[in-house]
Amino acid sequence: MSLKIPLGFRFAGVHAGIKKVPGKEDLTLVHCPGGAVAAGTYTTNLVHAAPVVVDRARTPSSDIRVVIVNSGNANACTGERGLADARKMTQLAAEAVGAKENHALVMSTGVIGQFLSMDKIATGAAVAAKQLGTDEAAFLAAARGILTTDKGVKVAGRTLEIGGAAIRIAGMCKGAGMIGPKMATMLCVVTTDAALTPESAQTALSAAVDDSFNCISVEGHMSTNDTVLLLASGAAKKEPLSGKDFGAFRVALNELCVELARQIPDDGEGASHLITLEVGGCKSRDDARTIAQTIADSALVKTAIAGGDPNWGRIVSAAGYAGVRFDPSGVDLSINGHSLYERGAPVAFDAKSVSTSIKANRETKVVLTLCEGSEAIRFWTSDLNVEYVRFNADYTT
Amino acid sequence: MSLKIPLGFRFAGVHAGIKKVPGKEDLTLVHCPGGAVAAGTYTTNLVHAAPVVVDRARTPSSDIRVVIVNSGNANACTGERGLADARKMTQLAAEAVGAKENHALVMSTGVIGQFLSMDKIATGAAVAAKQLGTDEAAFLAAARGILTTDKGVKVAGRTLEIGGAAIRIAGMCKGAGMIGPKMATMLCVVTTDAALTPESAQTALSAAVDDSFNCISVEGHMSTNDTVLLLASGAAKKEPLSGKDFGAFRVALNELCVELARQIPDDGEGASHLITLEVGGCKSRDDARTIAQTIADSALVKTAIAGGDPNWGRIVSAAGYAGVRFDPSGVDLSINGHSLYERGAPVAFDAKSVSTSIKANRETKVVLTLCEGSEAIRFWTSDLNVEYVRFNADYTT
Repeated sequence: MSLKIPLGFRFAGVHAGIKKVPGKEDLTLVHCPGGAVAAGTYTTNLVHAAPVVVDRARTPSSDIRVVIVNSGNANACTGERGLADARKMTQLAAEAVGAKENHALVMSTGVIGQFLSMDKIATGAAVAAKQLGTDEAAFLAAARGILTTDKGVKVAGRTLEIGGAAIRIAGMCKGAGMIGPKMATMLCVVTTDAALTPESAQTALSAAVDDSFNCISVEGHMSTNDTVLLLASGAAKKEPLSGKDFGAFRVALNELCVELARQIPDDGEGASHLITLEVGGCKSRDDARTIAQTIADSALVKTAIAGGDPNWGRIVSAAGYAGVRFDPSGVDLSINGHSLYERGAPVAFDAKSVSTSIKANRETKVVLTLCEGSEAIRFWTSDLNVEYVRFNADYTT
Repeated sequence: MSLKIPLGFRFAGVHAGIKKVPGKEDLTLVHCPGGAVAAGTYTTNLVHAAPVVVDRARTPSSDIRVVIVNSGNANACTGERGLADARKMTQLAAEAVGAKENHALVMSTGVIGQFLSMDKIATGAAVAAKQLGTDEAAFLAAARGILTTDKGVKVAGRTLEIGGAAIRIAGMCKGAGMIGPKMATMLCVVTTDAALTPESAQTALSAAVDDSFNCISVEGHMSTNDTVLLLASGAAKKEPLSGKDFGAFRVALNELCVELARQIPDDGEGASHLITLEVGGCKSRDDARTIAQTIADSALVKTAIAGGDPNWGRIVSAAGYAGVRFDPSGVDLSINGHSLYERGAPVAFDAKSVSTSIKANRETKVVLTLCEGSEAIRFWTSDLNVEYVRFNADYTT
């Protein structure tokens, strides 16, 4: 895949010494010399990390110059000192690129409850500032700098023509399980050279996140640090997008966020299946999401898929305790196109061929349809393997 | 332990051929020749099994003569035919002991979505009726007849003196995980020879269940069949308990239900630890329960305990996304008496000795205290091991 990097941004990813593996990138800078409109969406966890506090106060914004991200330490549950450190990081990043502290944003991911070394951040930010580049290699180095237990970079891009101008959108995210061993978080930065107002950026981002990063889970444990940022430089087209143009941008942004979000459960720790849940026939989209998330979070559903077991009783019973009212006698269920349950009653099916289709494919598609309305949602999760448990239990202090 | 079996009851457990293992008990009768006051509490899952529909309509009751239980088949998700079968079971049980159908209750546990053989139930009920006994051996046979993946019987007893009369309470339950491979459910029958009115029986049972069976989880997947029944024969003392006597009975019933309930996560599939969560300092008991349950359902918390890892960040962050408002800077946390987190900030602790204490003990005690109020709850869950995943994934169709 060749990514078109949005104009008006420079990227760098360097090793600052926060991760123990020599040379492994753990500090990323995203620099927008001319200033970017910025919007953010954040974890709703009451126990949230210091960088979330800082960014939430600074977005939406009409002028963000730099984003600094570190991996290897989440700066979460670190009290007043952690909050001062998060602010210090924005100051160090701003100084490194010649901007003001309050024009900088910060994200952290990694160990909870340990203090970050500001010396390492200072040195790393200075080194990174010298390596800032506008090409794909620089973008990918930045994408590596935000990773923790991910198997590799998670990136996606879109281009579209708007009023004769080429608009580029490029995003990077991280997350492999909501949480790895003492690691927390999904982080995402989406850059575009379209022009947006702070309000339209926030509207577009919130809607896109609702369809993507709010529709994934690995084990359902919400992190303290989750952050998605959208930065719009306006370098491709100065006039803020509106009307149909803004609509076209939003469609592209949604698609890009879905493409990024799916990569997270697909890379879930130890996962052997990406499970796509389509829940339809609901009264509201919220109902659909609640049911989908309850199914996605059931260890019994996840272990069944891991074992290639078309155990529809687990899926239907999970829907039943989701807390959404529905008529159980109106439920249909299929897995990978095989109908297993219709109008609330079991259907004769060839268990062996359904099992084979689960085992033979990386992706398992579960479609649950109620008869309450016409609202639907797509939701993605990973299966639950012994590898996940090993990964998260065998960490020892 | 020697159980004092309540007067006025007869018990039997036989092999009816529903379970495939020859000789293994899979059908239980509890007979109360003189009639018992009965109360019940049931799963709140919208997708609930046929026996739940039948019992819910018949309790509280002033005259229940017999309870029939089968294991190996849950009679859940079986539609109209399943409902007719559940009623048929009460008819067969009633006929076997010479009672009327609407004086009988029924419980089922096992595979979801398959029809039960009424021929097997009819034969089994007739055989069981001939073996009904009043001694501990008969009680234990009945306790075996309700098991699915449990390692052994789960029973508990209490005796108390009320107005010069000895009152006996004896209970049996099953459940090893809310759900085993295609198995569902926790079931419980508590018998007593105290006299209760239907209303007082329901009040006492609902409160006891709230402190016990509503405070346990294995993987948080709510079953379609959960049922707890209380049967009071009045054979020890004819006058219904009231005032202080009723209070003393309620205390004993609560203790007994807690003793039974704890055995379920302690026998969780593959579990190596029983985790006792004490959540205190809350505005309401519901808040405390919501937080405790969210922690209990976190795969990351459960894998950490399995691995002997005092990973307090996972516990605190789970509390944070429970949906209950609290001040994060007022949180204290200890594990097995070691303080790890005080007033929202990490405490220096000897990770090795905490880890050793987790590994060396079957039970891990986690105490989380907020500063919002004075309400508290105790909650029990099991850890999450590779054995659980193997157990639930390696089932193949």
